[in-house]
Amino acid sequence: MKKILASIAFLACTLTVSAQQALGPGTGIKSPEINADNSVTFRYVNPKAVTVKLVGDFLTERSVDLQEKDGVWTYTSKPLVGELYSYSFIVDGKRELDPSNVYMNRDIATWTNIFTLSTKEGDAGHYYMNNNVPHGTITKIWYDSEQAKMDRRLTVYLPHGYEKSKAKYPVLYLLHGSGGDENAWSELGRTAQIMDNLIAEGKAVPMIVVMPNGVVRNPSAPETNETNMFQPTMMNSRDQDTKPMEDEFPTIKKFVESTFRVKTGQYNTAIAGLSMGGRHSFAISRRYPGTIGYVGMFSGAGSGPDNAKELKALFAAKPKLYWIAVGSADGVKQSASALRDYCNQNNYPCEYYESDGGHIWKNWRVYLTLFAQKIFK
Amino acid sequence: MKKILASIAFLACTLTVSAQQALGPGTGIKSPEINADNSVTFRYVNPKAVTVKLVGDFLTERSVDLQEKDGVWTYTSKPLVGELYSYSFIVDGKRELDPSNVYMNRDIATWTNIFTLSTKEGDAGHYYMNNNVPHGTITKIWYDSEQAKMDRRLTVYLPHGYEKSKAKYPVLYLLHGSGGDENAWSELGRTAQIMDNLIAEGKAVPMIVVMPNGVVRNPSAPETNETNMFQPTMMNSRDQDTKPMEDEFPTIKKFVESTFRVKTGQYNTAIAGLSMGGRHSFAISRRYPGTIGYVGMFSGAGSGPDNAKELKALFAAKPKLYWIAVGSADGVKQSASALRDYCNQNNYPCEYYESDGGHIWKNWRVYLTLFAQKIFK
Repeated sequence: MKKILASIAFLACTLTVSAQQALGPGTGIKSPEINADNSVTFRYVNPKAVTVKLVGDFLTERSVDLQEKDGVWTYTSKPLVGELYSYSFIVDGKRELDPSNVYMNRDIATWTNIFTLSTKEGDAGHYYMNNNVPHGTITKIWYDSEQAKMDRRLTVYLPHGYEKSKAKYPVLYLLHGSGGDENAWSELGRTAQIMDNLIAEGKAVPMIVVMPNGVVRNPSAPETNETNMFQPTMMNSRDQDTKPMEDEFPTIKKFVESTFRVKTGQYNTAIAGLSMGGRHSFAISRRYPGTIGYVGMFSGAGSGPDNAKELKALFAAKPKLYWIAVGSADGVKQSASALRDYCNQNNYPCEYYESDGGHIWKNWRVYLTLFAQKIFK
Repeated sequence: MKKILASIAFLACTLTVSAQQALGPGTGIKSPEINADNSVTFRYVNPKAVTVKLVGDFLTERSVDLQEKDGVWTYTSKPLVGELYSYSFIVDGKRELDPSNVYMNRDIATWTNIFTLSTKEGDAGHYYMNNNVPHGTITKIWYDSEQAKMDRRLTVYLPHGYEKSKAKYPVLYLLHGSGGDENAWSELGRTAQIMDNLIAEGKAVPMIVVMPNGVVRNPSAPETNETNMFQPTMMNSRDQDTKPMEDEFPTIKKFVESTFRVKTGQYNTAIAGLSMGGRHSFAISRRYPGTIGYVGMFSGAGSGPDNAKELKALFAAKPKLYWIAVGSADGVKQSASALRDYCNQNNYPCEYYESDGGHIWKNWRVYLTLFAQKIFK
């Protein structure tokens, strides 16, 4: 009870100091707590609440109820498998973030609490954790876009040792989906953790990963956007057609190849993306045949018949990998499998990977983990 | 009313999709809205709430009440002067973030919504905005710490043009306070915005700004910390004495000078910090006389009499600037003015700057804006 009173005092204190923009002591409550058996305990202090529920992507139920004792609401999950999970509380019907957990991701315009756990070497969670391995550099750098007539921001992953080496590295261009921006893959997608871990384990070759903003009329994520208080939405952070990004790609590639120590040429260049970014990857690879050796389309593809002539030229240039990945419950499964069938009918070598689940980051992180192991080898 | 129903539908939708970790459509409500007269309107949807209050560092009151109509709670402030402001809602006595505003800062363990506005060229807010000026690069890079026996992360600001130029740049080492980390100055401190704007206006010379993690036993901010679910606190993110950071500084400096194109020598090297980082700047500058030409102590200083011999050596080496800044309501004002008096008694050239207010980021951003204009000239 002392601990609870202390934590309520902490909260009160937070209110006072937030009014003077000073210190942020948090709540003094541990939530979430990952237990020894990989169950997870959530705690939330609110003596006045009538009902507190938990929603999370680790639950089979739509939501579960927390139990209250002395003003502290608690729920302990069953043991979980290694993964990056997200959750929120529903307090008297209203969604709330966990004030005890500093770990959050923003997906378009919604912040959600997250936590990561790994139960065994090599599970999905293992690749999303900050393990004790050499870490690459994450750079936020701006390039001049003639098309957009503005500077636009890129997120760039440089493998560990880049700065001290004279070596050149192959480049993966990694594209986000509708509503996203140049932070989506590095934050929601765990690109740095996945690449650090794969490279440390010798499962991927050291490579540069370039994560552009795929909405050419937008310069950057909200935090640095010149439109003050820019609030991203599906629509204002989406390009209805792929052409602007097709047109922009050579400018981005030229900037990257003149700014970083890059191995050039088809078999040192890969592109992949999720959803809209998968459509971008389809479109850019067929637009510039012979320049991209590895193509990954995650939950987003394009029409074979509508692009027959360009696909013929693309495959004539012999890309080493044309990889179509989609979830069995994903709305775009039909177009993805249609592209696979079109490739097969035309004897275009393509790989098709189908996972469980739908149009979600949980799948896209897995697709990146798999795709990164297949390229530049 | 349609709009409100739509937004409530949006909320419901957010709940559903958060359970499957998919899209984040936000609330469909605009909050905060900066009005033409620089008043700011806050909106919050919650038909069930009994009271909704607002706390914020722009209010003279401890809190103000929002008014409810059709389930939407609203408050409009009086016109505000240019500044970066923070606020939270208090819903039936419980602190809540604004679900309609993606802009947030984390201070130690507490996330708070923020907004920025500028009412005239050159006001404080002007330097914190993402203006249409050339942008520098923000890099998160890891160095090997012999003392800590781990890789530790630095945030580094590289001025616009660094990558395309052959020029060397002077370096400012910028240190955070207790509870902070290598993200504190770039996020709460708006370092990139301040430097971009000052450099674009010719008020500061292009410089590299290195923002280390000042707690040597910690490798990095939570997001990349190898301690899974690391929750920062004042204590676990603080060094009780300055010695670990004094001992670490040469390792950081050596890494920076061997990794980036840096002008070396006393008059190309500056150090500044806030609170604990001010004490670090005091300690590091007196520990290594003749190596740092410009010293800034923001709301944190050290004892003259206890360091008489080293201060004598420091000032014998003729630093160009020894700058002590503090707020008139800051608890450390006494020690700061005591150091000023000690310098004056010993004819050590020092500058003393006293602002209004207390031990808060609002002051530290101003101190950086002023200090950056005084160095390397």
